Amino acid sequence: MTVSDLTEAELVARIHSHLQSPPGWLLVGIGDDAAVVEPERNKLEVLTVDALVEGVHFDRRLMPPDAIGHRALAVNLSDLAAMGASPRLALVSLALPEDMTSGDFDRMTSGIAGLARRHRLHVVGGNLTRSPGPLVIDVTVAGSAKRRQVLTRGGARPGDEIYVTGTVGGAAAGLQMLRGSTTGAGGKREGDPACIHRYRYPVPRIGAGVQLARNRAAVACMDLSDGLADGVRQIAAASGVGIAIDGDLVPVDPAARRWFESTGLDPLVTALTGGDDYELVFASRAALGARLRAVRQRSPALTRVGVCTREPDVVLHRVVNGARTEEAMPGGYTHFG
Amino acid sequence: MTVSDLTEAELVARIHSHLQSPPGWLLVGIGDDAAVVEPERNKLEVLTVDALVEGVHFDRRLMPPDAIGHRALAVNLSDLAAMGASPRLALVSLALPEDMTSGDFDRMTSGIAGLARRHRLHVVGGNLTRSPGPLVIDVTVAGSAKRRQVLTRGGARPGDEIYVTGTVGGAAAGLQMLRGSTTGAGGKREGDPACIHRYRYPVPRIGAGVQLARNRAAVACMDLSDGLADGVRQIAAASGVGIAIDGDLVPVDPAARRWFESTGLDPLVTALTGGDDYELVFASRAALGARLRAVRQRSPALTRVGVCTREPDVVLHRVVNGARTEEAMPGGYTHFG
Repeated sequence: MTVSDLTEAELVARIHSHLQSPPGWLLVGIGDDAAVVEPERNKLEVLTVDALVEGVHFDRRLMPPDAIGHRALAVNLSDLAAMGASPRLALVSLALPEDMTSGDFDRMTSGIAGLARRHRLHVVGGNLTRSPGPLVIDVTVAGSAKRRQVLTRGGARPGDEIYVTGTVGGAAAGLQMLRGSTTGAGGKREGDPACIHRYRYPVPRIGAGVQLARNRAAVACMDLSDGLADGVRQIAAASGVGIAIDGDLVPVDPAARRWFESTGLDPLVTALTGGDDYELVFASRAALGARLRAVRQRSPALTRVGVCTREPDVVLHRVVNGARTEEAMPGGYTHFG
Repeated sequence: MTVSDLTEAELVARIHSHLQSPPGWLLVGIGDDAAVVEPERNKLEVLTVDALVEGVHFDRRLMPPDAIGHRALAVNLSDLAAMGASPRLALVSLALPEDMTSGDFDRMTSGIAGLARRHRLHVVGGNLTRSPGPLVIDVTVAGSAKRRQVLTRGGARPGDEIYVTGTVGGAAAGLQMLRGSTTGAGGKREGDPACIHRYRYPVPRIGAGVQLARNRAAVACMDLSDGLADGVRQIAAASGVGIAIDGDLVPVDPAARRWFESTGLDPLVTALTGGDDYELVFASRAALGARLRAVRQRSPALTRVGVCTREPDVVLHRVVNGARTEEAMPGGYTHFG
């Protein structure tokens, strides 16, 4: 059975069956012309939208349907985390190829609903249409944050230190492993299940983002959808500073490092420019040391990786053959298409 | 030049050039991980999302790019109108075919921006990606309404009267005229420019919706994206009533009526089941007569077309060959695909 055997009402009912009971602040939910929501008192509202397009952001052969649903919501939650906002609601707009099975539809929906439940976020509305081409999932999320706790990209000053949560490179390695397993390009090399899981089920750093915001421990923050190299460039540009990253401090995922080395890639450069990690990169400063220690008690995996500079360049320091070198941060200008 | 010759930043800058200066309630706009918004005091928030997919909702040969942009926002504003909400902000997510010219991109963007300006709505964020298939435009809008003024679909009771704004059938006739002009199926018949314009540039009935809400003159309301027949069925189902429509009262657009007659179609049935009118259908009652008269002073084109009944059926009355007939409301159950 495919989605084209069902009515829109039947598809909506299947989505409903995955959702929690509606929260008290949701006054009108799915089924009317729009959702009606009670705003949170004394909070600002934080809004973002992100689309996943089949053939651009994922390959249905490499991603189980629940992972596609999970990712569509996770990338948006990651944006909220980067602002220090707590998730509240989502609207989900789906363009479904007619040959999508109803089982895959259910699995995709449960991927969205499972992650929503974990973050106590409610799906308040959405849209369903067919697609004559790729599967497209557009998710809009809204969260809330206190006025003085919002984390933008633009608050870093020369001398501020740059931190990253967790590790980087694991998702890019996982994607390479998956691609190798379908094309055979990976040869006999075994992929690492943790890297593959990391690629398929990104974990938005909501906890770290909210802790940074509540403790007011960061002066700039963004999430790593396109890699750490891109992240530091964006913070540098928005804040009007340069950034020097110490390559030897960058927490490259160990399994990813081994994988990149075995394929002849530079592990550091590949990890810096690989996307899909969805960690947070942020700037803090010495005067906020006590606050940052408070954050560490709940979000221990924070690594200092560099410093903001007066010179406007974004550079990478590392030790090559025993000598300290400086190079331009890899990656950069890319065409849209 | 196509969109694939530009960077994402360059495309965003082109969008920016069409937008008004940001309102005071927008604390963080386009360019960060998410938008940050000050909620409106003592108002509820009304949220909806709708997608336009090329090949499903529009044909690029029949719709100029600015009309595609206009429509993508208009269908969402129509949902706000149906709730009695005033528009406030939008997030726009675009999946662009690589062969889309930058000129068409600009025209599409100006179609969105022009309608936004007319309703003092601000585009606070969005997403850009390429599409390996059709052009997809997903727009999320948020508006606000006072708690006791929200218009749902579910408040009608037996005896309430059913009204519709404006006229119906014009957009469906316009689409037929456009299709005939490309396939040659229209023969020598001249299309009506007003119907074609009506199809291309739907007018969301924000004014009427807000007047109905402020005057508390309606007890149920929805917008006509899929035709009046569908609209009354939805209100009947949500309210737990039946509805009897008097076909002789339905305000069929005169040019559309002539067009349908000339093609051998039943003008009333075609107008009732034709989509894209984006008028409002609503229920009111005798006790609200003074309030409805107040609405009429600002939104004169309100036509009473039927009544809510205790029997659960949705029926159409009309006079055929001098005799009054009753039939089931045309249209109905359709598969999703």
